[in-house]
Amino acid sequence: MRHFTIELEELNQKLLQMGGLVESAIHRAVRSLVEQDRSLAEEVIRDEPAVNRMEMEIDGLATRLLALRQPVARDLRLLTAALKINTDLERIGDLAVHVAERSLSLMHHPLVKPMTDIPKIASLVQSMLLKCLDAFVRSDADLAHSVLLSDDEVDALRDSIYAELLEIMQRDPSVLTAAIDLIFIARNLERIGDHATNIAEDVVFLVKGIDVRHKALESQ
Amino acid sequence: MRHFTIELEELNQKLLQMGGLVESAIHRAVRSLVEQDRSLAEEVIRDEPAVNRMEMEIDGLATRLLALRQPVARDLRLLTAALKINTDLERIGDLAVHVAERSLSLMHHPLVKPMTDIPKIASLVQSMLLKCLDAFVRSDADLAHSVLLSDDEVDALRDSIYAELLEIMQRDPSVLTAAIDLIFIARNLERIGDHATNIAEDVVFLVKGIDVRHKALESQ
Repeated sequence: MRHFTIELEELNQKLLQMGGLVESAIHRAVRSLVEQDRSLAEEVIRDEPAVNRMEMEIDGLATRLLALRQPVARDLRLLTAALKINTDLERIGDLAVHVAERSLSLMHHPLVKPMTDIPKIASLVQSMLLKCLDAFVRSDADLAHSVLLSDDEVDALRDSIYAELLEIMQRDPSVLTAAIDLIFIARNLERIGDHATNIAEDVVFLVKGIDVRHKALESQ
Repeated sequence: MRHFTIELEELNQKLLQMGGLVESAIHRAVRSLVEQDRSLAEEVIRDEPAVNRMEMEIDGLATRLLALRQPVARDLRLLTAALKINTDLERIGDLAVHVAERSLSLMHHPLVKPMTDIPKIASLVQSMLLKCLDAFVRSDADLAHSVLLSDDEVDALRDSIYAELLEIMQRDPSVLTAAIDLIFIARNLERIGDHATNIAEDVVFLVKGIDVRHKALESQ
């Protein structure tokens, strides 16, 4: 049984390592955009296979442990949570790559606004990601819950970015493609927040055994 | 053991039922857009809680079977595949809701083109979804493989929709918001295709035990 504990610890470590990879990808993708730094975006795209390899490794490890250890109760919840969190992290990695690709396509344009709100939404979703991973390691349901509360703020920022860009496009149709790229970047960052929310919900379920997804159902 | 077979069959049936729900949601969302039919879009939005309930039910059933039956080999792969397919189906349901919402916001606009390509991409991703679910029920890896091949066609359609809309916007900035809604609808439909691809990959893994995700890795 001691050995199983070590294996679970290894799984946790790998998930955290994967979290670190995608966190760094988001960070570099957004910096590449703000600083118009082509090489940072290229790094993010180049590093994608490492994230994908990591995903398959974690999937393999979690499935192997399910098969060999036949866990119950909390250990079972931990392994199914690991499978889900792994998928969310991989998608976050994909979204960071999308941001990097759009950043490259924006490289030849003079910077369209709103370059203050995009870093703001980016730092918000990065903090959500850090918190939900932290909550996972520490089995801290309260911390996970705090991530769920950031969702509205992310949506509000995305809406204000959209409104601002729409106004800019209406004034100056020559910035159309650049502005649409920025709208998609805001949308991709928002979706990173959605995945962090998914992870936070998995952590709450893991710790408390309560399913907090689709909360709207409760009030029906 | 006979009993376990019945439980797995029940799980399969529930997944298919969920597949049917989201398939119908896509269908109605796109029809509501093309026919400017408000009530169809409202139906899709109204039915979302049913999809969410189904997701939690399937998750609960798969996790319970993992715990009680402690399956190995193919049965274990089936249960972990069910967990993943379930997540993909729920996201497809979300995307259908997004399409329905944009369709509502387009209700007051005269129809901007391209109303031929959007139904085309929609029917393509619907057929991908039907095929991958069919492949799942019949354990048909070849059929699942055929889904993976549609991905490029979906991307090409999305690109041509984008190019066409961009041209329209440049000519007539008054259609900006409507055109951006359509760009997002095309993108949402494309992402439904991505989720169908995920499911197809899970089916190949289930049947053959081979991980076909991130195929690019093989050539490195």
